[in-house]
Amino acid sequence: MSLALSVMEKTSTDASPLTMHSSEKQETVCIFGTGDFGRSLGLKMLQCGYSIVFGSRTPGMSSLLPSDAEVMSYSDAAQKSDIIIITIHREHYDFLTELTEVLKGKILVDVSNNLKINQYPESNAEYLAQLVPGTHVVKAFNTISAWALQSGALDASRQVFICGNDSKAKQRVMDVVRSLGLTPLDKGSLMAANEIENYPLQLFPMWRFPFYLSAVLCVFFFFYCVIREVIYPYVYEKRDRTFRLPISIPNRVFPIAALTLLALVYLPGVVAAILQLYRGTKYRRFPDWLDHWMLCRKQLGLIALGFAFLHVLYTLVIPIRYYVRWTSNNRTITQVITKKENPFSTTNSWLSDSYIALGMLGFFLFVVLGITSLPSVSNMVNWREFRFVQSKLGYLTLILCTAHTLVYGGKRFLNPSNLVWYLPSAYVIALIIPCTVLVIKFILILPCIDKTLMRIRQGWERNPKYSESSLNGKTDI
Amino acid sequence: MSLALSVMEKTSTDASPLTMHSSEKQETVCIFGTGDFGRSLGLKMLQCGYSIVFGSRTPGMSSLLPSDAEVMSYSDAAQKSDIIIITIHREHYDFLTELTEVLKGKILVDVSNNLKINQYPESNAEYLAQLVPGTHVVKAFNTISAWALQSGALDASRQVFICGNDSKAKQRVMDVVRSLGLTPLDKGSLMAANEIENYPLQLFPMWRFPFYLSAVLCVFFFFYCVIREVIYPYVYEKRDRTFRLPISIPNRVFPIAALTLLALVYLPGVVAAILQLYRGTKYRRFPDWLDHWMLCRKQLGLIALGFAFLHVLYTLVIPIRYYVRWTSNNRTITQVITKKENPFSTTNSWLSDSYIALGMLGFFLFVVLGITSLPSVSNMVNWREFRFVQSKLGYLTLILCTAHTLVYGGKRFLNPSNLVWYLPSAYVIALIIPCTVLVIKFILILPCIDKTLMRIRQGWERNPKYSESSLNGKTDI
Amino acid sequence: MSLALSVMEKTSTDASPLTMHSSEKQETVCIFGTGDFGRSLGLKMLQCGYSIVFGSRTPGMSSLLPSDAEVMSYSDAAQKSDIIIITIHREHYDFLTELTEVLKGKILVDVSNNLKINQYPESNAEYLAQLVPGTHVVKAFNTISAWALQSGALDASRQVFICGNDSKAKQRVMDVVRSLGLTPLDKGSLMAANEIENYPLQLFPMWRFPFYLSAVLCVFFFFYCVIREVIYPYVYEKRDRTFRLPISIPNRVFPIAALTLLALVYLPGVVAAILQLYRGTKYRRFPDWLDHWMLCRKQLGLIALGFAFLHVLYTLVIPIRYYVRWTSNNRTITQVITKKENPFSTTNSWLSDSYIALGMLGFFLFVVLGITSLPSVSNMVNWREFRFVQSKLGYLTLILCTAHTLVYGGKRFLNPSNLVWYLPSAYVIALIIPCTVLVIKFILILPCIDKTLMRIRQGWERNPKYSESSLNGKTDI
Repeated sequence: MSLALSVMEKTSTDASPLTMHSSEKQETVCIFGTGDFGRSLGLKMLQCGYSIVFGSRTPGMSSLLPSDAEVMSYSDAAQKSDIIIITIHREHYDFLTELTEVLKGKILVDVSNNLKINQYPESNAEYLAQLVPGTHVVKAFNTISAWALQSGALDASRQVFICGNDSKAKQRVMDVVRSLGLTPLDKGSLMAANEIENYPLQLFPMWRFPFYLSAVLCVFFFFYCVIREVIYPYVYEKRDRTFRLPISIPNRVFPIAALTLLALVYLPGVVAAILQLYRGTKYRRFPDWLDHWMLCRKQLGLIALGFAFLHVLYTLVIPIRYYVRWTSNNRTITQVITKKENPFSTTNSWLSDSYIALGMLGFFLFVVLGITSLPSVSNMVNWREFRFVQSKLGYLTLILCTAHTLVYGGKRFLNPSNLVWYLPSAYVIALIIPCTVLVIKFILILPCIDKTLMRIRQGWERNPKYSESSLNGKTDI
Repeated sequence: MSLALSVMEKTSTDASPLTMHSSEKQETVCIFGTGDFGRSLGLKMLQCGYSIVFGSRTPGMSSLLPSDAEVMSYSDAAQKSDIIIITIHREHYDFLTELTEVLKGKILVDVSNNLKINQYPESNAEYLAQLVPGTHVVKAFNTISAWALQSGALDASRQVFICGNDSKAKQRVMDVVRSLGLTPLDKGSLMAANEIENYPLQLFPMWRFPFYLSAVLCVFFFFYCVIREVIYPYVYEKRDRTFRLPISIPNRVFPIAALTLLALVYLPGVVAAILQLYRGTKYRRFPDWLDHWMLCRKQLGLIALGFAFLHVLYTLVIPIRYYVRWTSNNRTITQVITKKENPFSTTNSWLSDSYIALGMLGFFLFVVLGITSLPSVSNMVNWREFRFVQSKLGYLTLILCTAHTLVYGGKRFLNPSNLVWYLPSAYVIALIIPCTVLVIKFILILPCIDKTLMRIRQGWERNPKYSESSLNGKTDI
Repeated sequence: MSLALSVMEKTSTDASPLTMHSSEKQETVCIFGTGDFGRSLGLKMLQCGYSIVFGSRTPGMSSLLPSDAEVMSYSDAAQKSDIIIITIHREHYDFLTELTEVLKGKILVDVSNNLKINQYPESNAEYLAQLVPGTHVVKAFNTISAWALQSGALDASRQVFICGNDSKAKQRVMDVVRSLGLTPLDKGSLMAANEIENYPLQLFPMWRFPFYLSAVLCVFFFFYCVIREVIYPYVYEKRDRTFRLPISIPNRVFPIAALTLLALVYLPGVVAAILQLYRGTKYRRFPDWLDHWMLCRKQLGLIALGFAFLHVLYTLVIPIRYYVRWTSNNRTITQVITKKENPFSTTNSWLSDSYIALGMLGFFLFVVLGITSLPSVSNMVNWREFRFVQSKLGYLTLILCTAHTLVYGGKRFLNPSNLVWYLPSAYVIALIIPCTVLVIKFILILPCIDKTLMRIRQGWERNPKYSESSLNGKTDI
C-alpha cells in the first residue's frame, strides 16, 4: 500500500505531459473516493488516455491526487461521466442514496472487498445495486492491487473478473479494463459478485484437500517408520538410531507419499469408469466426493511431484552423508581384517541398477508431466495432445514408479524376516493403491470391457430412460 | 464426456438465478443440437448472460437441458437469433437445406470435428457454407472440450480458432468467444477451416521429426555401445558384462544424443549462412528441408535438454550403484593387500574436476535456455533479448558441452588402444557434428566474412536481379 | 530477415485463395514501403482478410510482393485507406510532407525502430506527427519481427505496444492488431512512443543491477577463498592446491552468493518498514535506490536460485570427483595400516544429516518459489496467494538456508583456529546479511511494533499533515 504512493508520486510528474495533446476528445471516468486504490487507478487511467474526475466529500482538501485530475463534490463529479468507480468501503455506501437522482442510468463500478469470506448476507455489489436503484452496477477490479497497478509489477493476476446484469454496461467496463492492459473475464450476472468478492480472500482452495491428505500421509508413515526403525531397535537392542530421523526416515516417507498421491491421481478415473459400467449409463451425476476429487487431480499430481523431487534429492546425497561414509569405510576395514571374500554378484548388480534406472525414468517422465501442466504450456497444446500427455504418459509414469518400488523390494519383498512387530516394510504398504489402480486399469482396457465403456461414453444406455438423449448421441455433438 | 453432464447437472441449479435480473435486454443465441457439447456450451453461455434457444428435431422430448433455455423446432429456434451454433455431426447436416429460407443472412457457427485428418475433400465448414447458401458460416469452438467448458478446468487451450469469409460475422462470434472467457484467434477466411478442423486431430506435429531422429540416434548408439562394451568382452574374454545395460550404457547414449541434438539446433543456421554467402543474395528461398529444420529447432533443443537431464541423473547416482561400490571397495582391498602405492596426481584431479565443472555449467545454461523457451517467459522478453538468449547463450552452452566431452576424453582421446574392432569410443563420434558447427561458426564470425554476410542480410546482392528490392533495402524496413 | 522472405514466397501462393470469397466488404489497409517488414505484414494481413494496398516510390518495379496486393504510388495508395502503415526508416520520412493534403485526418501507424536508445531528441512517432500535421499518428508493431510474423513462430512476445493521442485511432489500430492474433497493449499518449521505441533495444534492463551485483559478489568471494585455500597453503606449506579451483572453490562461492542474494531480496522490505516506523507515515516517497531495489527483487531471487541450483549440482558430484575418491581411499588404507579405531559418532551423524536436510528443504522451497514466479503461474493466483507464497514461503526458505549454513559451520563456527591471516571462513561472512534480516524481521513482527506498523500502513500518521488522506484512510479503499 505504501508503495503505491511512493511510485505514484514519482510517476505523477510524468503523467501530466501524457495528456497534453488533449485536442482529441477523451472519455471521462469518475472515481468516487481518493484512497490509495482510487488514486492509483485514476493515475493509471490518466496514463492510458482517460480524463479523470474524482468525487470527494471534501474536494478542497484532497491532496496527493494526480495533478491532471479534477476533484469535485460527489454530485458534481457524477454528472461528468457515465461510469462511476466507487472506491469506498461498503460500510460507507450510505451517502450514495442521496445521489440516486444524479446516478440514475449510470454505470456504477463496485471495486470493494471484504475482510472475511461471506462477511455479509449479500455481496457488496448487490447491496450497492439495491441501495441505488436505477443504476447499472458492475463488479470489477477487486482482484487488482493498488501497488501492482502503479508499479507495473502485475506479477499476480492481470485478470479482472467482471459481473453485472446489464451487458452493455459490462461491455463498457470491459473496454476500460482492456485499455489498461488487463484481461477482463466475464463471470455473468450480478449473482456472481459474491464469488468474485470471495476470490481474493481465498488461499489456494483447490490445494487444501491435497495438502491435508499429503500431510496426513506423511505423518502416518513417518511414525510408522520411526516405530520400525528407531523405537524397535532401541527397545530390543538398546541401540540409538535417532540419527536416522533427519534423512533416512524422510527418504522412506517421501517416495511413499509420492507414489500414493500419484496413484490417487488415477484412482478417480478408474472409479468413475466402474461406476459407469455398473450403472450402464453416463447420464447420472457422480457423487460429490468423486467430482471434487477429479477436479483436484492436478494438485495431487503436483504435490506428488514435489515429494518425488525431494526423494531424488535425499537419495542423491546418500554418499555424502557421514553415516554412509563411516559405514562403507568400516565395512572395507572389517573385510580387510577378516579377509572375507565378497564376490561380485551379477544378479545384485542387475537388481540395483534396474530399480535405480526405473526410478530415474519415472522421475524424468514425472517432470515432463509437471512441465506440461504449467498453464502456458498446456495452453499451447490441443485437447488430444493434453489427454495424451496426462493419460498415456501419466500411466507410464505410474507403471515405472510402481516397478521401481517393486524391484527395490526385490527378493526381500514379502520375506517374513522383514516384519517388525508384525509390521511389514513401509514400501509394501505404499504399493497397495498403485497396484490396485494398475490392475483395475488393465482389466478396464481388455477389449470386451473397453468396448462397453466406450459405447456408454458415446451415449448408449443399458436401460434408456431419456429417449432423446440416446437418440442425439448419434447425431449431435 | 460423462463428466460434462455430472458437472452440468450440479451447476444448472445455480444457473437459473444468474439470469433472474432479465429486465435488461440480453443477446439471444440459438444452438442446434442437444448433445453433450450443445448443452455444455448453452449452459456456459447462459451463465455469461446470454439467452439460449435450443433447436431440436424432437423439442418436446429434450431433457437434461438447462432449465432457463427454451427448446423449439429448428425453424422456430432459428428465427429467434442471428447466430446459430450447429452442434451436429457433419453427416447429419442435410436437414439444414430445408431451412435455407429461414437461415438466410444469419451467422452459422460450425463447431464440428472429424475423426481423421482430411477425412472429407472439403472442410465441414465449407461444406456447410455450400449447403446453405446466403448464410455467413464461421468456424469456431472445435478445439474446446465440453468437459472443460463446464468444469472450468480449461487447462488445455483457451484458444478458439476462428475463420470465416464475412468479417462482421467473425467479429460477432469473436465477441461471444471473449465473453465466455476464451481467447479468439482469427485465422482468416473459410479456406483456413480445413487447417482448424485438422488441428485437434494432430498429435504434436512439430515434435514428430525431432522425436524420430532422437529415437534413431539412441538406438544406433545403444547398439554401438553394446557391441563395444558387452559383446566384445563376451566374445574375447567370456566375461558377462550385461549388468552394464540398465545404467552404464544408457549413460553413454544420453549425453551423445544430447550433444548431437544440441549441435543440430545450430547447424541449420550455419548452413543457411553458407547458402546465402554462396548465392550472394538473401532473396531466394531455402530448400524445404532447411525451412522445416529451422522451424523445429526449439523441439530439437528441448529433447536435447531431456537427454541432458537424464545424463545428469544417471551420472549422479553412480556412487550409489552396487557395481560401483563393489569395484571401489575391491580396489581398496587389493591395494591394501598388494601394498601398492597410488600417489595423488594433480593432473588427474584437474582433468576430472574440469570436465565435471564444464558439464555442470553447460547443463545449468541449458536449463536456463529451456526455461526461457517456456511460452510465458519468452512472451515477456523482447526480440533482441530472445535472440540474445537463444543465440549467445545457446552457443555458449554448445561450447561448454563440447569442451566437457573433449576434456572427458582427455589423454585417451584418439588413443588407438581404445579401438575395439576398429570402432572408436562412442563419444568420439558424438563430437563430430558439434565440432563441425563450432568451427564453421568460428569462420563465419571472422570479420571479413561476417561483413559480407551482414551486407547480404541487409538486402545487398552480388548479382542484383530485382532492382527495386535492393533499392528499398536502404529506405524501407 | 532472409527467412522472412523464404517463408513468404512459399506461403504467398497459398495466400491468394484465402481472399477468393471477396464478395464481403473487406477493410483496406495501406502500407507505405515494400521492405521485408512491409511485405511480411502485408501478407499476414491478407491472410487475415484485409485488402492491402502498397505505396511505393517505384510502383512498377516492385517485385516479391504478395500477388493479391496492389502496388501504387504513395498518393494513390493513401487515398484507398484510412489507415496507413509507414514501414520506412525515419531518415526517409521527408517525402511525407508532400502528401500532407492526402493524409489529412488519416491514421498513420509508425512501426520504425532506431539503432540506439534515445538516438534522436524526439521519438520517431512524434517526429512523424510533427512532420505531417492533421494526421492521427499511432505507434505500433515495432516490437514484432518480420520473420516471426511470417513463420508463425511468435515465440518472443506477441505483445504489440500501442500509443497515440487519438483514442479512436488507437482503437482502430488495436482492432487490426487483435485480428492478426497479437495482443495490443495501450501505453497511453504519443509521449510514450519514446519508451516503446527504446523497448526493443533494451537488453534485460531489470536484470542489469542484480547481474552486476552477483558478479561482484562472486569475484570477491572467489579471491577470498583462493587466498585462504590456495595461496596460504602454498606460501606456508609449499603445497599445490590449485586443483581446488574448478569445483571446490566455486562450490564455496555459489552458496554464499545464493544466500546473500536471497537475503537481499528481503532486506528492502525490512528497510522500508523501518523507514515508515521512523517517519511515522506512509505518505512519503521512499528514496529512489529503495524503489529500484524493490522492483528488481524478483530478478535478485531468480539469480540466487541459479546459484543455489549450481551449489546443489556441485555438491552432488562430490563423490564422483577423483580428489574425493582418492582421499577417501587413502584414508581407509591409512586406517587399516595404522589400525587406528574410528568409532561412530552419533553427534557427527546428526550434524551432518541436519545440515544436509536443511539445505535440501531450503532448496526445494526455493524451487517452488521460482516456479510460482513464472508469469503463467503467478497469473493464476490471486493477490493474497501471491503474497503468501512470496512472503511466507520466501522467509521460510531464507530461515532454512541460513540454518543450513549455521549448522554447516557447526562446532567450528567461530573457532579461532579457522582464521587464516586473520580471515574467517567465507561462510561466516555470508551469514551476516541473512542473520541481520531475520533478526530485524523478528523484531518487526513483535506485537507492539507490528501493530504500529499496521496502523501506519492503513493510513494513520504520527504527525498528520494531510488531513484528508488520513480521513479517507478510514472510508476509501
